[in-house]
Amino acid sequence: MEKEHYFIDKYLKALSVKSSEYPMGIGDDCAIIEIKDKLITSKDISVSGVHFPKELDPYFIAYRSIAVAISDIFAMGGRPTGYLLGITHPEPNDNWFKSFSKGLSDFNNDYSVNLIGGDLTKGELNISVTAFGQAPDRLLKRTGASIGDLIFISDLLGRGKKGLIDYRENNNDINHYLKPKLPNNLIPKLTNLASACIDVSDGLLIDLKRICSLSNVGATINLNKDIYITDKDDLIAGDDYVLCFTAKEEFENEILALDSSIRLIGQIEEGAEVKVLNENDEEIEYTKDGWEPFTSI
Amino acid sequence: MEKEHYFIDKYLKALSVKSSEYPMGIGDDCAIIEIKDKLITSKDISVSGVHFPKELDPYFIAYRSIAVAISDIFAMGGRPTGYLLGITHPEPNDNWFKSFSKGLSDFNNDYSVNLIGGDLTKGELNISVTAFGQAPDRLLKRTGASIGDLIFISDLLGRGKKGLIDYRENNNDINHYLKPKLPNNLIPKLTNLASACIDVSDGLLIDLKRICSLSNVGATINLNKDIYITDKDDLIAGDDYVLCFTAKEEFENEILALDSSIRLIGQIEEGAEVKVLNENDEEIEYTKDGWEPFTSI
Repeated sequence: MEKEHYFIDKYLKALSVKSSEYPMGIGDDCAIIEIKDKLITSKDISVSGVHFPKELDPYFIAYRSIAVAISDIFAMGGRPTGYLLGITHPEPNDNWFKSFSKGLSDFNNDYSVNLIGGDLTKGELNISVTAFGQAPDRLLKRTGASIGDLIFISDLLGRGKKGLIDYRENNNDINHYLKPKLPNNLIPKLTNLASACIDVSDGLLIDLKRICSLSNVGATINLNKDIYITDKDDLIAGDDYVLCFTAKEEFENEILALDSSIRLIGQIEEGAEVKVLNENDEEIEYTKDGWEPFTSI
Repeated sequence: MEKEHYFIDKYLKALSVKSSEYPMGIGDDCAIIEIKDKLITSKDISVSGVHFPKELDPYFIAYRSIAVAISDIFAMGGRPTGYLLGITHPEPNDNWFKSFSKGLSDFNNDYSVNLIGGDLTKGELNISVTAFGQAPDRLLKRTGASIGDLIFISDLLGRGKKGLIDYRENNNDINHYLKPKLPNNLIPKLTNLASACIDVSDGLLIDLKRICSLSNVGATINLNKDIYITDKDDLIAGDDYVLCFTAKEEFENEILALDSSIRLIGQIEEGAEVKVLNENDEEIEYTKDGWEPFTSI
């Protein structure tokens, strides 16, 4: 039997559950999607040695790679429903697939999503995930921030950075870098309140700048210890997968009451700059904005 | 400016045309898809040195990688509409993107499809394409072949293999390997006639075996010179992206009248085997079925 289909049949097929939205399951040239209303979709690639350590347990490669892609569905206020999975692997074997498919299975259970198809081929280890979700009535776009809007994060920054250090230094594998916790409970309550939203994947500063740039506004962040775990560099660390979102001032109390993890971190302003002020209102200089694939290896 | 967004803004954004189906264009966390009825989707990965020669002009890398993925939409009888594009590249530059984006643009024009989003990141060259299409009223599934059905191919086999040889030996770059011609005109006429269908990507034998296996039938191919370009090994060469489809005997004339390139190559039978007979009805032995990623590098 050809290896490609051996691994797909043995480890992946059972993860593809037929449903009213995905009526066919793995096995034909395409997957079928039947949705009411709008579908949202996003592609995210995780490369060995770039996005995760080369020696990482395949269980976490799987869990993390899917989480990173599904995070974009939450960032637009959507409900994730499924994903296509592209695996490029130099030489897959049963042990690798056993652990990898357990990571997929656990993610699928944690977030009620379904593997709907994909591709397995040969090459340097590269996990390409196309996430699908149902759009909310009101999409949370990057373009929606207005001057005066407050800026929030859905949880503390720096958990991804700390998780990777913990894993590398202490072999601690229960952490937010390896198994990012996504805001699945928050999102449905947020879609009527937020004006713009992004997930913090590359770092708060670079991701907030993306909102500002597309909304034609600037921003000020009021840095205080209550918004990060380790130090001010948590604002440029990335791998957090918390949401950074804006909302009209009148919604402040309603938003902070949604979840005790939510932090008010600043305000949208005129201009094009994103400034960070310390507790004495002095500007803090950063030498970079966040993680970038082509300069930070 | 960060490189990732520099290249996306300069070379890819203009290829993302807003439409009623894809109302948003590149730039947010997700792409939006608004479809009536059913959507079909498929992911296909092309890896440098595995699926295409390492030194190949990025124009052809682009054209070919998208064609290979869109081919799956035709294989189910669909109308391709757009794709998400994942580019993993060790060190992209303007020259590479200029040529690559021209390949995308030409493909988009040739097949009326739209780039709707994607990802660009660092790593060994790997092009991951998620193709989208509108499902036909009657999907052409691999499971639909019945005993007695005739087997057809939409065009001669071996053009992909010959194209790659022509390119390598004669630097001939106008050929079917580099710019596969897909059956866009045939498909709408075929969806009411065919009982099962697959695109010949890995080789006729291996791909027809996929239909047979999922339909619980066997098949006999009557080999003659009129179905291949070079020799009998064209049946296991792959890279053809012609359709292999089955249909009830009563549709034979109607099908052959659709296009002069269509060939009747055999018949579905009881059993589980796919046999190839020569013109004297003697069985021809093949040592393999087609291209497989994990054994054929």
